[in-house]
Amino acid sequence: MSLINRVVIVGGTHGNELTGIYLVKKFERSPQLIQRKSFTINTIIANPKAFEIGRRYVDTDLNRCFQRSCLQNPNLASYEAQRAKVIYSTFGTGGSQQADLVIDLHSTTSNMGLTFILASKHPFDLQLAAYISCVNPKVRILCSAPKTQDNCYLDSICQFGCTIEVGAVAQGVLDANLFQKTEELISTILDYVEIYNHKASIKIKDTFTIYQSIKTVDYPRNEVREIRAMIHPRLQFRDYEALHPGEPMFLTFDGKEIIYEGESTVYPVFINEAAYYEKGVAMSLTQKIQEILPES
Amino acid sequence: MSLINRVVIVGGTHGNELTGIYLVKKFERSPQLIQRKSFTINTIIANPKAFEIGRRYVDTDLNRCFQRSCLQNPNLASYEAQRAKVIYSTFGTGGSQQADLVIDLHSTTSNMGLTFILASKHPFDLQLAAYISCVNPKVRILCSAPKTQDNCYLDSICQFGCTIEVGAVAQGVLDANLFQKTEELISTILDYVEIYNHKASIKIKDTFTIYQSIKTVDYPRNEVREIRAMIHPRLQFRDYEALHPGEPMFLTFDGKEIIYEGESTVYPVFINEAAYYEKGVAMSLTQKIQEILPES
Repeated sequence: MSLINRVVIVGGTHGNELTGIYLVKKFERSPQLIQRKSFTINTIIANPKAFEIGRRYVDTDLNRCFQRSCLQNPNLASYEAQRAKVIYSTFGTGGSQQADLVIDLHSTTSNMGLTFILASKHPFDLQLAAYISCVNPKVRILCSAPKTQDNCYLDSICQFGCTIEVGAVAQGVLDANLFQKTEELISTILDYVEIYNHKASIKIKDTFTIYQSIKTVDYPRNEVREIRAMIHPRLQFRDYEALHPGEPMFLTFDGKEIIYEGESTVYPVFINEAAYYEKGVAMSLTQKIQEILPES
Repeated sequence: MSLINRVVIVGGTHGNELTGIYLVKKFERSPQLIQRKSFTINTIIANPKAFEIGRRYVDTDLNRCFQRSCLQNPNLASYEAQRAKVIYSTFGTGGSQQADLVIDLHSTTSNMGLTFILASKHPFDLQLAAYISCVNPKVRILCSAPKTQDNCYLDSICQFGCTIEVGAVAQGVLDANLFQKTEELISTILDYVEIYNHKASIKIKDTFTIYQSIKTVDYPRNEVREIRAMIHPRLQFRDYEALHPGEPMFLTFDGKEIIYEGESTVYPVFINEAAYYEKGVAMSLTQKIQEILPES
């Protein structure tokens, strides 16, 4: 088991998600808040130009620029493609200040509270998730679809990675309550890294709940791809709650209900995320699973 | 008393405020929903290019382009300055399809529920506000600071105007519940115009509550104008609730409270509106007033 020698905290991968940006600014003013004894810590605002203009991105979504093929392609000219290369060549595997763990801070207009997104099901990630669940049972653990080298996000740049999503908060808005809770969650993660590096034995419950992404669902659209329904009021803000077959999912502008036609109960997340309208995602369906911790 | 011959409903003055845009699209598909016997009705998406790119505006805030000096200035080249001229020369006073009443549809990240903003205290506006209050007592009536020809919004283009603000809803997001309530409020306004045109006598309570804007308050900022505090959690989402002297207003990133130091109780609105960070507005303070309807 190798140690975690460097952790990097990333804010502003999306320029209008202010929580992470102002947390990174705070940490840069008061670095003692995130310092621990057994590892070095760095911080970075990933997309400063997008933050400056108050938008998610300048040319393209930075969090979709970390596919290895993009990082190696010298012809990509977008601002974000260039930022991805800088971030990867600094903190990525083999980089000038190679990190062992990246924590990428995001926010969402969906009511996802504090969500910890696992980049993989590596025992380190699962142990970390289990630890977080013990310290703060309100944190939801989300496991996204398995990533490959050509389908991966910023949190894939080094050996271990995770993403924090907090919401509901509008783009371009700071919510003090979520700001403080996110700071606490970061602190919990750093505490865990310290425990891990010291090979300290801690008592963690060996089962915990994770939400495993199955698939995304788009809005109903007309022939010119314009949306023709909204999230149903009964589903709005109900992230992580059970959606049973036959229950309403969408409401057309004329007031007709569109039901969930799946065969099993699912737990939607990223319901009505503003940035996903353009990606064709009205929500992401997950399964609720009791995860058993591998023996360490 | 002259009749209201034409009403124009405007959506998308801000391109990322989707409620009004999708309502206008709905009305354009089903014009019978807004037709009444005694007047003509038109609809327009004010800033289609901003909607297309999912932003508040392309070059500049369209709702700040209706000062008479701007409308008359042939040298203003921004997309929004041009749109303002087109809208004014069509539906404004003296325009090709001059309207008598404009209803401008907005949404806000502030928790303002359904808000009806009076453009003036003309008896027509007050009667309309009183009628709305009777039909739906949950609608808040907000009276903004008095406008002049060089300090006015889109709702000033013709004789009568009003603005609807609904929230809290994130930019770029549709909330089905608010969508339906906004549609009902528009219908109430159109019903009133019909009553007004028919000179029908209706029973309206002669006093109702309005919130009169006094002044705006900016975020605490440092020497380079960067914000150094957030809306206090106790104030977040508390639009239209009483804020007493000595109560917390902001929370610094380090957790220090900043209190409201005014001398009288106020009722803040537009608390934490995303689009107002750049305008230097953390909230707008209002006084709660019992308005007495003038005799008609």
